[in-house]
Amino acid sequence: MIKINGFDFIDGGVCAAKGFTASGVIAGIKAGNTTKRDLALIKSSVRCKTAALFTRNKVKGAPILVCKEHLNDGYAQAVIVNSGNANTCNSNGIEIAEQMCSLAAEALGLDKDDILVGSTGVIGQKLSIEPIKAVIPELAASLSENGSPLACEAIMTTDTRKKEFAVEFELDGKKCRVGGISKGSGMINPNMATMLAFITTDVAINGELLEMALRKVCGVTYNMVSVDGDTSTNDTLILMSSGLAENKEIICEDESYEIFVNALYAVMMNLARETARDGEGATKLIECVVSGAPDENTAKTVAKSVISSSLVKAALFAADANWGRILCAIGYADAEFDISKTAVDLASEKGEIAVCENGAGVDFSEDKAKEILSEEEIKILVNLNSGDSSAIAWGCDLTFDYVKINAEYRT
Amino acid sequence: MIKINGFDFIDGGVCAAKGFTASGVIAGIKAGNTTKRDLALIKSSVRCKTAALFTRNKVKGAPILVCKEHLNDGYAQAVIVNSGNANTCNSNGIEIAEQMCSLAAEALGLDKDDILVGSTGVIGQKLSIEPIKAVIPELAASLSENGSPLACEAIMTTDTRKKEFAVEFELDGKKCRVGGISKGSGMINPNMATMLAFITTDVAINGELLEMALRKVCGVTYNMVSVDGDTSTNDTLILMSSGLAENKEIICEDESYEIFVNALYAVMMNLARETARDGEGATKLIECVVSGAPDENTAKTVAKSVISSSLVKAALFAADANWGRILCAIGYADAEFDISKTAVDLASEKGEIAVCENGAGVDFSEDKAKEILSEEEIKILVNLNSGDSSAIAWGCDLTFDYVKINAEYRT
Repeated sequence: MIKINGFDFIDGGVCAAKGFTASGVIAGIKAGNTTKRDLALIKSSVRCKTAALFTRNKVKGAPILVCKEHLNDGYAQAVIVNSGNANTCNSNGIEIAEQMCSLAAEALGLDKDDILVGSTGVIGQKLSIEPIKAVIPELAASLSENGSPLACEAIMTTDTRKKEFAVEFELDGKKCRVGGISKGSGMINPNMATMLAFITTDVAINGELLEMALRKVCGVTYNMVSVDGDTSTNDTLILMSSGLAENKEIICEDESYEIFVNALYAVMMNLARETARDGEGATKLIECVVSGAPDENTAKTVAKSVISSSLVKAALFAADANWGRILCAIGYADAEFDISKTAVDLASEKGEIAVCENGAGVDFSEDKAKEILSEEEIKILVNLNSGDSSAIAWGCDLTFDYVKINAEYRT
Repeated sequence: MIKINGFDFIDGGVCAAKGFTASGVIAGIKAGNTTKRDLALIKSSVRCKTAALFTRNKVKGAPILVCKEHLNDGYAQAVIVNSGNANTCNSNGIEIAEQMCSLAAEALGLDKDDILVGSTGVIGQKLSIEPIKAVIPELAASLSENGSPLACEAIMTTDTRKKEFAVEFELDGKKCRVGGISKGSGMINPNMATMLAFITTDVAINGELLEMALRKVCGVTYNMVSVDGDTSTNDTLILMSSGLAENKEIICEDESYEIFVNALYAVMMNLARETARDGEGATKLIECVVSGAPDENTAKTVAKSVISSSLVKAALFAADANWGRILCAIGYADAEFDISKTAVDLASEKGEIAVCENGAGVDFSEDKAKEILSEEEIKILVNLNSGDSSAIAWGCDLTFDYVKINAEYRT
């Protein structure tokens, strides 16, 4: 976890903010599943101003179309989410997604237009409403302020770790919170949003600024993550604000707005970073920090190019300081800069070592490099020496298990 | 091999065209190599009009810089190429590349400005001239019209198959030939050219049309191949014309030009296709044919998106008809079209099966799909049903061996 100055990380995940409860139960959506929670519910005690970002893939999961419809008024009060089936590219997806909302609305005594819906899992298979219908009463009855881990488990697919974070801070002397849960872990190359992430806050803020903050933070967190370059059909990032913190409503880009954006960054950056660490088959988190770029876009493009390279990812799986592949990936990034000024360092808790200066190799100790790269968190530090802009991207290594997981996923 | 009407495929590879000889010897460039040829020479009996395309990566191998210099006058007579070291991103690369040209020129009695040079292998290590110097006399003495397989072996790195093709055809009643050799097999996502490919012809054609033909054919062959999405620093595609076929020199885009372009396509398409088949670790060739596109660019973008998807590649390794991943990759391709009209079929020698129509799944036999996908050549047939343009792209599956090869490459 990366701490951000001024924010206390607290427990509670998606329920840390005032007004939110959650739960997760076993519905048995995927044939044979009798042990893993696969249906989640997140609820607010009041209607929430809600901002959301969805995949830019032309193929959009049915839940996304239903969410867009239900967000027409900018408000929502609950989210129901299943794993085990993406409810995408089948013939009755919208109908099923609407039914999920109706069932949740009925159990919670809410309007179905205030329910959002998400699905994740295999694409192109029909999702049966029956197992969902059967457990909705149990799911609604089990909602609790301690339910974030249960909801978090229920949205996982090939994920191996729960991804939950929450922070506490003050606005106008009032305690405020931002928290969230997120899942990966394949088909991860978010563009506007990631696979599934649900963020809640009790900060009072107007709807326009809520969306502006979400877009801004998504651009430097989820949109800077890649596991395999495949942009999912179901990417969904939802931010709900209950407004129960009793701060003065944020209505302009003032200091309170900046603090809120930073709190959102603290939560979303850590969720996004954990999504990369938990990429399918991954054994290492790779963080590429690009500095000295002529502009932010160049920095972002170069950082994403490095963490997306199959050859860099395979080399790091073997803790091999094959910096030529890193420089190669910097060189084919779609951006303009002078490659001959580029410097590359490799770093981890075991130290830092320069491997490339002025676009060419420098002598270094292979033993020291091996020691550095054998850690589970690797930093690739790229300095373009051509300006003041910087960016960070997160990825993971490419391993036998990535191939294994994805050669066997449907079976 | 895919035959093209009107062209006879013949033996001889890069020596099939009149005037060309080649050879390959063991120089021992990579430490410990005493058994694999690693230094190649291709020579014409006359100076050749020569067109070439190089990588668009900002990091360019030293041999590319020297080739560009030596091609200032549009002519060349020989090419010297080593494998085992890319002579890239080291401090003395240009000096070494120039020395390789000088040594070859001396042995052949030619001007060093008429020698081109190529290198392939690991990036960022110094290339010693000594082992090359020691074998140049033997290499020059062994040049022969039967030498294409030796040169082809000498340019291979992780390749498992030789890639050589040649065709014969008539222009103005004269027998003409186009032939070539090529190597892959990782860091393959050519942009203007591929890793290393050397094409020769005896067709008399002016320099401008020679380059125009090369660009055109490259755009639909090498530029439509991806093994791992990593655009190499050393991509080099050289086309030399001896003009010895005695046809009337081609000086405009007439019928003879069209025939020459088709002959070039027959050779380069098959070389490119074999490069995909022999991708690192690959067990299957994947050919994605996109039709019904509103324009050629859309067709190309969609076809490359499908064959580049890690998830599609891993699914095909397991012969799994996970068409949702194919549709997903079509959906995130950077092009505009109506996804709801898209149809996808899977085909091989074992038959053809529809898996997706109007952007949604259709019922199909999983057993039949498995049988089709268990073959070594798989076709993914995408119809966008939105126009008349089409394109083909070639890739391969993603396997345990890809990870193995690239986790161990430097050691």
